[in-house]
Amino acid sequence: MADKLIPREKGFSEWYVDLVQKAKLADYSDVKGCMVIRPNGYALWENIRDVLDGQFKATGHKNAYFPMLIPESYLKKEAEHVEGFNPQLAVVTHAGGAKLEEPYVIRPTSETIINRSFSKWIQSYRDLPLLINQWANVMRWEMRTRLFLRTTEFLWQEGHTCHETEADAEAETLRMLDIYRAFAEDYMAMPVITGRKSESEKFAGALRTYSIEAMMQDKKALQAGTSHNLGQNFAKAFDTVFQGRDGQQHHVWQTSWGVSTRLIGGLIMTHSDDAGLVVPPRLAPTHVVIIVIGKSPEERAAVLAKAEAVAADLRRHGLSVLVDNDETKGPGFKYFEYELQGVCLRMELGPKDLAKEQCVVARRDTREKQFVPLASAVDHVRAQLEEMQRALFLKAKAFRDAHTFEVNSWDELTARADEGFLQAHWCESPACEKKAKDALQVTTRNRPFDLKQEPGSCVVCGGASPGRIVFARAY
Amino acid sequence: MADKLIPREKGFSEWYVDLVQKAKLADYSDVKGCMVIRPNGYALWENIRDVLDGQFKATGHKNAYFPMLIPESYLKKEAEHVEGFNPQLAVVTHAGGAKLEEPYVIRPTSETIINRSFSKWIQSYRDLPLLINQWANVMRWEMRTRLFLRTTEFLWQEGHTCHETEADAEAETLRMLDIYRAFAEDYMAMPVITGRKSESEKFAGALRTYSIEAMMQDKKALQAGTSHNLGQNFAKAFDTVFQGRDGQQHHVWQTSWGVSTRLIGGLIMTHSDDAGLVVPPRLAPTHVVIIVIGKSPEERAAVLAKAEAVAADLRRHGLSVLVDNDETKGPGFKYFEYELQGVCLRMELGPKDLAKEQCVVARRDTREKQFVPLASAVDHVRAQLEEMQRALFLKAKAFRDAHTFEVNSWDELTARADEGFLQAHWCESPACEKKAKDALQVTTRNRPFDLKQEPGSCVVCGGASPGRIVFARAY
Repeated sequence: MADKLIPREKGFSEWYVDLVQKAKLADYSDVKGCMVIRPNGYALWENIRDVLDGQFKATGHKNAYFPMLIPESYLKKEAEHVEGFNPQLAVVTHAGGAKLEEPYVIRPTSETIINRSFSKWIQSYRDLPLLINQWANVMRWEMRTRLFLRTTEFLWQEGHTCHETEADAEAETLRMLDIYRAFAEDYMAMPVITGRKSESEKFAGALRTYSIEAMMQDKKALQAGTSHNLGQNFAKAFDTVFQGRDGQQHHVWQTSWGVSTRLIGGLIMTHSDDAGLVVPPRLAPTHVVIIVIGKSPEERAAVLAKAEAVAADLRRHGLSVLVDNDETKGPGFKYFEYELQGVCLRMELGPKDLAKEQCVVARRDTREKQFVPLASAVDHVRAQLEEMQRALFLKAKAFRDAHTFEVNSWDELTARADEGFLQAHWCESPACEKKAKDALQVTTRNRPFDLKQEPGSCVVCGGASPGRIVFARAY
Repeated sequence: MADKLIPREKGFSEWYVDLVQKAKLADYSDVKGCMVIRPNGYALWENIRDVLDGQFKATGHKNAYFPMLIPESYLKKEAEHVEGFNPQLAVVTHAGGAKLEEPYVIRPTSETIINRSFSKWIQSYRDLPLLINQWANVMRWEMRTRLFLRTTEFLWQEGHTCHETEADAEAETLRMLDIYRAFAEDYMAMPVITGRKSESEKFAGALRTYSIEAMMQDKKALQAGTSHNLGQNFAKAFDTVFQGRDGQQHHVWQTSWGVSTRLIGGLIMTHSDDAGLVVPPRLAPTHVVIIVIGKSPEERAAVLAKAEAVAADLRRHGLSVLVDNDETKGPGFKYFEYELQGVCLRMELGPKDLAKEQCVVARRDTREKQFVPLASAVDHVRAQLEEMQRALFLKAKAFRDAHTFEVNSWDELTARADEGFLQAHWCESPACEKKAKDALQVTTRNRPFDLKQEPGSCVVCGGASPGRIVFARAY
């Protein structure tokens, strides 16, 4: 029997790392802060990628690919950008056996090198909007890393768009944020708050940054995706101009937006339990495993034939099904392993079931078992998967809502610092943010769109506040 | 009107570079030897990737992702490997603002770092075969680069597998080579010869390398994919062992295999013409463009409605269809552009066609136009696409066969050095290969499986030869 996981109550962080490794989602490597994404983890990323890619294309975006090396001088063209990313850069100084005249950095993000191309491609307003996305690896040297959540190298997508007007860019920024929100909620079953980041938390080089923020089971926030209105900052640095309808040259208005393999960490920490991974059916690499039970070869052959027939039926409905007929391992071991790896439904089928024309179906999230007539097995499975998708979202939302509080003083903020999302008045000064961060390890997450904004007093300094923002401890 | 392409007879290489840029497939960047893959080029790569990925999965392979940085010491563990790749490495010496204790190289290929993980994952013969694939970017510093064909950074897939026996590894090596062959022929419509590479042309660190080799329209060879039997070389360097059925520890037997964005260059140089890109329908991002013709708004509205109806019918059959109703550009300009960009079929639809219930369909490869009754347009389009796929393959194969010769002396090899594939006797000595390369710029491509092997005399030195190998000038 394989080792049980460290339970969440013994240490959420230890449970997480244990789960990621035991469920074979990812592994450490000898390269500082870099992970190996194992097939079980990569399959989740492929499903995430395929859904998002379809949504990007449906909204007119096209994929392209830009060099992973960026001339160091490019980064310096936008002052805030280089200041933000400089400490995290990996630098290539030698190549082809010789020292390079100008060092290259491995992209931490691609605004600069992409703008160089945009400057060549765009001539007139007829070329706008230009809607580009890139799926790529990026590198940001991190001091403290954690599998999926914060790694030196990670996989992501980065959208980069150019528009004729500021309003068009703002609309795109919010459109993509809403695609992220809908993906998080409808596919990952992970409720998120959407809103604007503070000035000190915005992307280096952006005018405005918006984010989706989710709550993990330890009540900490996870920034799961960001969408930036870049204004004309990069356009001015790279001279990305177009001839407008007025015949004059103008700088384009831009956006960028991204989500990464960090989403896998969010998915794990939102739904999983002490038995292992729980995956929402709409992103699950395996929906159903059918365990063939039986002692004699004759028994197993009859059960296997039925299992394959049921599997074929399920696959016709687009479901991913595994039939496990391995005789060298017992059912108990298998149940343990498939729960650990997050298969949504387990179907047990043995000779007695066959005689009664039934099977047993166990759901991963509730771990409830039900006897189901074989004749209605397919309908049952499909209904259970839909129900599971819904249940995971509602459970996560109930948890998030139960751990969201209004706090009205420094004492309350202090008392509840580790209790979840804290809606508090803040005067918008970075000094107050810093004080909260240093003293309580809470940061401003975002100012949610659906949180009514009314004036009040900053919980840190008592100064005038335009409205509440969410503070929380965060990954 | 846009510029016409440089015709092939004025310079095949100039035509190629002109086409790649004018058809917006790829672009140069300021990063030495690195290209920008533009949306038109990336769409081809996505189609190539999706087909191959499905075939890898259907044969039991799973995708994973390994760090792009490799500790320099890893490469040194396999002597031939480091010797082969050392001159091409890009080296990261600084990161996070400090000098690294040990430099990292950007992966030129991932055998070493993947073997490090395999050593941890594999315990017993029950863990074998282990069948892993990675889609990734790699970097090999090149002196002379050409868009898609040879770039410092390129995108590829690299398969890495471990087996219990040498025979299993050899079977896998050949299985994947055949998947490449079938893909090249059935999807890319690009005939290839499959066979074994010479010792001097094999992969650095492999026991044996097999390749698929295609002939471009300038009669030069393109190595389009390779599959390596690695033997136990990397397993010994990284101590990748398993407990065998005999209870003893054994080193695993391994393979690796890859194809890259170079395939896009092969596709272009096999089929395209002086009007631009020609893409086999099975890989085409756009199968049909419907050009709406008409002067008055009423005319255009009626034609557009019909065009959209036909497009919807075609899309129901899984085809990718564009309806072009842009009034700011004339039909002539559009025909030119869509031919340049390689749309397989162009459908012209105007008020007169509507009155006669017909349309005009023009095929990209033959550039023939046909009047087709609207009632049978869908059937016609589908039949034409199938016919085009077949015709492209047959045309390329006829060209390749017409430029394949037996040569039996140094004089003949010299006379025909630039005429195609030259089947010649060779004594297997690297010195004779070098002489042919230095004097005639021809290299051994591979020893084709289907070329009957009979003893003879080396065309270079006259020594004993076990059979003919293919010499050619190559990319």
